[in-house]
Amino acid sequence: MRLKVFADRMSQPSRAVIIFCKLNGIDFEEVKTDISKRQHLTPEFREINPMKQVPAIVDGRFKLFESHAIMIYLASVFPGVADHWYPADIFKRAKIHSVLDWHHSNLRRGAVTYVLNSTLAPELGLPLNPNAAAEAEKLLSASLAKIESVWLKGNGRFLLGSSQPSIADLSLVCEIMQLEVVAEKDHDRILGPHTRVLKWIDDTKNATAPHFNEVHSVLFKVKEKLRRKLSDEAENKLESSKKTSLHSKI
Amino acid sequence: MRLKVFADRMSQPSRAVIIFCKLNGIDFEEVKTDISKRQHLTPEFREINPMKQVPAIVDGRFKLFESHAIMIYLASVFPGVADHWYPADIFKRAKIHSVLDWHHSNLRRGAVTYVLNSTLAPELGLPLNPNAAAEAEKLLSASLAKIESVWLKGNGRFLLGSSQPSIADLSLVCEIMQLEVVAEKDHDRILGPHTRVLKWIDDTKNATAPHFNEVHSVLFKVKEKLRRKLSDEAENKLESSKKTSLHSKI
Repeated sequence: MRLKVFADRMSQPSRAVIIFCKLNGIDFEEVKTDISKRQHLTPEFREINPMKQVPAIVDGRFKLFESHAIMIYLASVFPGVADHWYPADIFKRAKIHSVLDWHHSNLRRGAVTYVLNSTLAPELGLPLNPNAAAEAEKLLSASLAKIESVWLKGNGRFLLGSSQPSIADLSLVCEIMQLEVVAEKDHDRILGPHTRVLKWIDDTKNATAPHFNEVHSVLFKVKEKLRRKLSDEAENKLESSKKTSLHSKI
Repeated sequence: MRLKVFADRMSQPSRAVIIFCKLNGIDFEEVKTDISKRQHLTPEFREINPMKQVPAIVDGRFKLFESHAIMIYLASVFPGVADHWYPADIFKRAKIHSVLDWHHSNLRRGAVTYVLNSTLAPELGLPLNPNAAAEAEKLLSASLAKIESVWLKGNGRFLLGSSQPSIADLSLVCEIMQLEVVAEKDHDRILGPHTRVLKWIDDTKNATAPHFNEVHSVLFKVKEKLRRKLSDEAENKLESSKKTSLHSKI
């Protein structure tokens, strides 16, 4: 029985798991679980993951959720996965666990909260919250600075000074990629100062091509849609201010 | 060279690591790193953990932080650690990773944010924030309900239906223990409805005695201090209302 991966490509941990499978030649079936259509809340999906979150996998009789746990499991049971993704060496492995644990309450929390409250909330029927976005930006920026000063120091192109990527690079870069959907000036303000992070994102993209861009294509489409919406709104505003000014002249 | 554990027993992940070492006969030196004295912010500690958080370990030339990563590392390098703490079986191990990953953004986030904003903030020179506490209580209560319905279902006394505790039991129970310091009515309102969780806490305490209570004793002292403070405040209020009423009679 083929491995089933329940995922929504708009979810960054879903993308990490899908890219991981594709890169490592793991034969799997992607079961689209559309969050915007609330497919993660159905009774059927609750049987897969009672926490109602993607990604989740079913491998024969075995069910698992949480993307880090999934990638570690896949690296352990599929013999074709190259060692650098999740090294057998206890010390290297421990450092990867440390990055992944840190990620939850720092980069991930900052990025998710920022993107939701600055940009995506209306797409999910929620109001934007500029105060929450500003708070989250602080955590996000501090996290990016820490990645740069702690895990990208040294000569390696990847986290922890490695010459090849691990599941930590994949998880963290997929997380940062969601910033693609925010307004360009916000994206550049947040990521611009972190040149090492930007280079690492490029290195990770290149090391995982062509799957990385293919799996992110849905995100790029949403980005285009949101930017078109922003520019339409700006145009409408200009148009209506022209009318008002014409009116006031008449 | 002995393992060094940099810890503050008021920090729940610090307690989990110390109890883990004691239970498993790991020879270690506990290096007290007092958060209330800002010892985690010194340049010396930054050399141990650039993220400025406890717990952190130094094992020979190897440094590591993040409590889950530390316990997994210790279970892997110290041969005396019984298998049930971090099973060699890939499937059991994967489920433990899943619990630990889930923990970060659910139980831990809910509990830390609730306790800080409802109780501990003034001890750290910060204001209480009842709105943030109320928000956090929702996440905390939802997390306790999930533990009960997902991971404590079945016949085992511990998480995932196990008959013996794992590092996930230790981590999550130490987290919940911080609720000891909140006002009794709040503690009972939050934990009271979750009878399975209460039984599991007791089972974990018993399975890890006498170290569990010994390492938590500092928390029990803070609890006493805070409750005394609360009752003094109530008494002062009563006293001053008596005086006011006497005054108004005169």
